[in-house]
Amino acid sequence: MSIIIKPCDGGITAPAGFRASGIHCGLRKNAERRDIALIVADKTCSAAGVYTTNKVFAAPVGVTRAHLAGGKARAVICNSGNANACNADGYDKANATCKALAEELGIAEEEVIVASTGVIGVPLPLEPILTGIPKLHAELDITAEASDLAATAIMTTDLKKKEYCFSYEFNGTTIKMGGICKGSGMIHPQMGTMLGFITTDAAISAELLDRALKAAIADTFNMVSVDGDTSTNDMVTVLASGLSGAAEITGEGEAYDAFCAALNTLCRTMAMAIAADGEGATKLLECNLYNFSDIAGAKTLAKSVICSSLVKCAMFGADANWGRILCALGYAGVPFDTDLVDVRFKSKAGEILVCENGKGHPFDEDIAKSILVEDVIQIEINMKCGNVNATAWGCDFSYDYVRINGDYRS
Amino acid sequence: MSIIIKPCDGGITAPAGFRASGIHCGLRKNAERRDIALIVADKTCSAAGVYTTNKVFAAPVGVTRAHLAGGKARAVICNSGNANACNADGYDKANATCKALAEELGIAEEEVIVASTGVIGVPLPLEPILTGIPKLHAELDITAEASDLAATAIMTTDLKKKEYCFSYEFNGTTIKMGGICKGSGMIHPQMGTMLGFITTDAAISAELLDRALKAAIADTFNMVSVDGDTSTNDMVTVLASGLSGAAEITGEGEAYDAFCAALNTLCRTMAMAIAADGEGATKLLECNLYNFSDIAGAKTLAKSVICSSLVKCAMFGADANWGRILCALGYAGVPFDTDLVDVRFKSKAGEILVCENGKGHPFDEDIAKSILVEDVIQIEINMKCGNVNATAWGCDFSYDYVRINGDYRS
Repeated sequence: MSIIIKPCDGGITAPAGFRASGIHCGLRKNAERRDIALIVADKTCSAAGVYTTNKVFAAPVGVTRAHLAGGKARAVICNSGNANACNADGYDKANATCKALAEELGIAEEEVIVASTGVIGVPLPLEPILTGIPKLHAELDITAEASDLAATAIMTTDLKKKEYCFSYEFNGTTIKMGGICKGSGMIHPQMGTMLGFITTDAAISAELLDRALKAAIADTFNMVSVDGDTSTNDMVTVLASGLSGAAEITGEGEAYDAFCAALNTLCRTMAMAIAADGEGATKLLECNLYNFSDIAGAKTLAKSVICSSLVKCAMFGADANWGRILCALGYAGVPFDTDLVDVRFKSKAGEILVCENGKGHPFDEDIAKSILVEDVIQIEINMKCGNVNATAWGCDFSYDYVRINGDYRS
Repeated sequence: MSIIIKPCDGGITAPAGFRASGIHCGLRKNAERRDIALIVADKTCSAAGVYTTNKVFAAPVGVTRAHLAGGKARAVICNSGNANACNADGYDKANATCKALAEELGIAEEEVIVASTGVIGVPLPLEPILTGIPKLHAELDITAEASDLAATAIMTTDLKKKEYCFSYEFNGTTIKMGGICKGSGMIHPQMGTMLGFITTDAAISAELLDRALKAAIADTFNMVSVDGDTSTNDMVTVLASGLSGAAEITGEGEAYDAFCAALNTLCRTMAMAIAADGEGATKLLECNLYNFSDIAGAKTLAKSVICSSLVKCAMFGADANWGRILCALGYAGVPFDTDLVDVRFKSKAGEILVCENGKGHPFDEDIAKSILVEDVIQIEINMKCGNVNATAWGCDFSYDYVRINGDYRS
C-alpha cells in the first residue's frame, strides 16, 4: 500500500475538532508580542507526549507528564517569555494555570497540557495568565488565522513561525495532521524535544498514539541539534480527536503504518524548520550518513558531525574543511574503519567529493565554495561497512548566535 | 612532608640535560612564523606519553605511541602548519622525519617523538622538514631563549606562547620540570590532550613516569574544553633526564608523591593557559564543583558546564544567566538532587550567590555584572551530597571564535 502524504493549508486547526488562539497577556513587556497560546479540542482526545531527559526539568513538564499518564487530554496552554524552571513555586503556578483553564472550559484539570518557554529561574507571573485565560477562551477559533496566532505566541528567539499541516487518504477518508513548534536556542533534544504541539483528526488508541509518537521523534526531533544544550522544557504532544470519520486505529497494520508515515513527515518537517531557524543560523545542515553497520551508531556519528562547533563554523564560512568532519566522526565513541570513509558536500549548486577512503581527494576550491555558499547544505558520508542510513539536522554557527546568547536575558 | 613547588625562569631547557630550538623551515608561507621545534636530551631519558582517543588519529600519534612503548626517548620534533592527519602517506612521512632526525643526531629512530599540528587532510611537505633538521640541530641551545623559540614554533592560532617551569627540593636536591604546549581550537581532550612537551631532570623509572603522567593529565589537561571537539593530534609527552643529581624514583613514596605534585602543578598551569587562550576567548572560566558523591560524576558535571555553548555565550556577555548552568548539569547524564544545588559567580571583583537549593536567589544585577566583566571567572557549584570536588577549565564563546573558524584554512 502506498500512502500519499500531501502538505495542506492551515496548521493545528485544520484537522477536524480543534480551535486555537494566541494573545498578549502581559508576560512580555512588549505589548506587540503575543505570549500565550491555547489549543482546545471539541471532545476529549487520545493524547501522548515526549519530554526532555534533562534531570533539571521545568515544572510544566512534570505536571503535563502526570496529566498525560492516562493517555487523554483536551487542551494545551503554553506561554512564552518564562520557562517556569528552577522556581520554588513552579509546580504551584503550573497547577494553578491548569485549574483556572479547566474551570474556564468546564473540563477536568487532568485534561490540560501545560507548557512554558523562556528564561530559566525567574518566577512566573501568574496574574497575566489568569486574566489572559478568559480572553484566550473568547478568541478560540477554527480558522487558519487562529492557528497562526497560537504559533506566533509560542515563539522566543525564533525568527520564523513554524506551522505545518499534512493530509493523507485511507480507505477513502481524508485524515489531517497539523503541528506548531518553536525552537531556536537550547536545542539538542534527547528523547523529548523542544516545544511542539500536534493535532490530528485520526482516531487512534492512546497506546498506539504513544508508540507512533516515540517512533517519529526518534528519527526527527531527536536528530536535531542547534547548540548541544538539551533544554529543561522540551516537550512534544499530540492530540487525536478522532473526528475525521475514519475507523479507529486499534492495532498495528496498514492504517497504523499510514498514520505513522504522516506523523513522521510532519515531525521531520517541523524538526528541519527548527534546525534551519536555529539561533543565529544562516544555513540548514543535513548530515546523511550511509551504509553503516547499526542504526544507533549511525545516528551517533551523524549527530556528532552536526554538533561539532568547528564543522558549524566552517559551514558558516563556506569552507570545505572536511578534516573536521573526520575528526567529529572519530571522537563520537563509535568504532568504524577510518580508511573506508568518503565525504561529499552537496547543495542545489552541485556536489563535490572531498575525502575518499579516509584521505583527502583533490578538489576545486572554487567549486566547493560555490556549493557551500547555498543555504541548505548536505554533508554526505559513506561509511561503506553496512546498509543502515541515518540523517541528522543542524545549522551553522554565526556571529549572531554569540550576540543573541551573550545577552539573552536583557 | 610538605613540598614547596615554585615557579622558576626558563621553560623546557631549565631542567638539566635539555637543549631546544625552533625555526622557520618553510611549512608556513609566512617566513616570519617559526614552524618546527626540536628538543634534544643529552642522554636517553625515561619517557611517557598520552594521546588522543579520537578514532581518527594523526600518523605522528601512531608513530610516537609505538616509539614510546619501551619507555625511552631522547628527542622531540614537532611541526605546526600541518596536522599530517588523514593523508595516504602520513606514516611514511612521519617515519621519514624520525629517520632523518635520528641520523642527524646519531641516535636510534625509536628514540624520536614526532608530533604535528595544523590543518587536517593536506599532504605534509617533507622537503622543508628534511632541510630544516640540520638547521634545527645547529641551533640547539640550553638558553631560555632556545626554549622560547621552540614554544613559538608549535603555535597555531594560539595568541600567547605557553612555556612554564617549576622547581621543588627533595632531600636537599633541586628538581626542575619545564613544559611547552599549544592549544587554541579543536580542544576537548579525552585521555590524551593537545600538544604538550614536558622535560624534567628528575630520575624516575619509565613505569612510574607513565603512571604519574596519566594521573596528572586526568585532573588537568583532560578537564579543559575550548569547543568540545577532540583533536586528531592530541599528545603530551614527558622526558626525564635524571641529571638533577637526585636519587632515582623507583617506587611509590615521598619522592614519587613530590614528583607527582610538581607534575600536577605544571600540567594544571599549562591546561589553564590553554583554556585562557582558547580560540577567540576573552576570558578564562573555571568551574569548581564541590561536595559531590563521586569523582567521575563530579568531573562530568563540571565539564558539562564548561562545554555548554549557552553558558560560554552568557559569560562572554557577562550575563549572570545561571539557569543555563543548571540546564548543563541536568543533561550531563549524572544523577543528582536538583533541589540541593547552589551556584555562585566569583572573580577578583567579588562573589555572588545566584541560585540556592536549585531555585533562583534574588541578586543585584549590577553587582553580578561587575563580577562577570573580569577576565577570570569562577563558577562555584555546591552539590551538597558528598565530599568530592572537581575543577574544569574553559573559555567564553566570542565573535572571534566564529571568525577564526569560519575561514581557518585560508
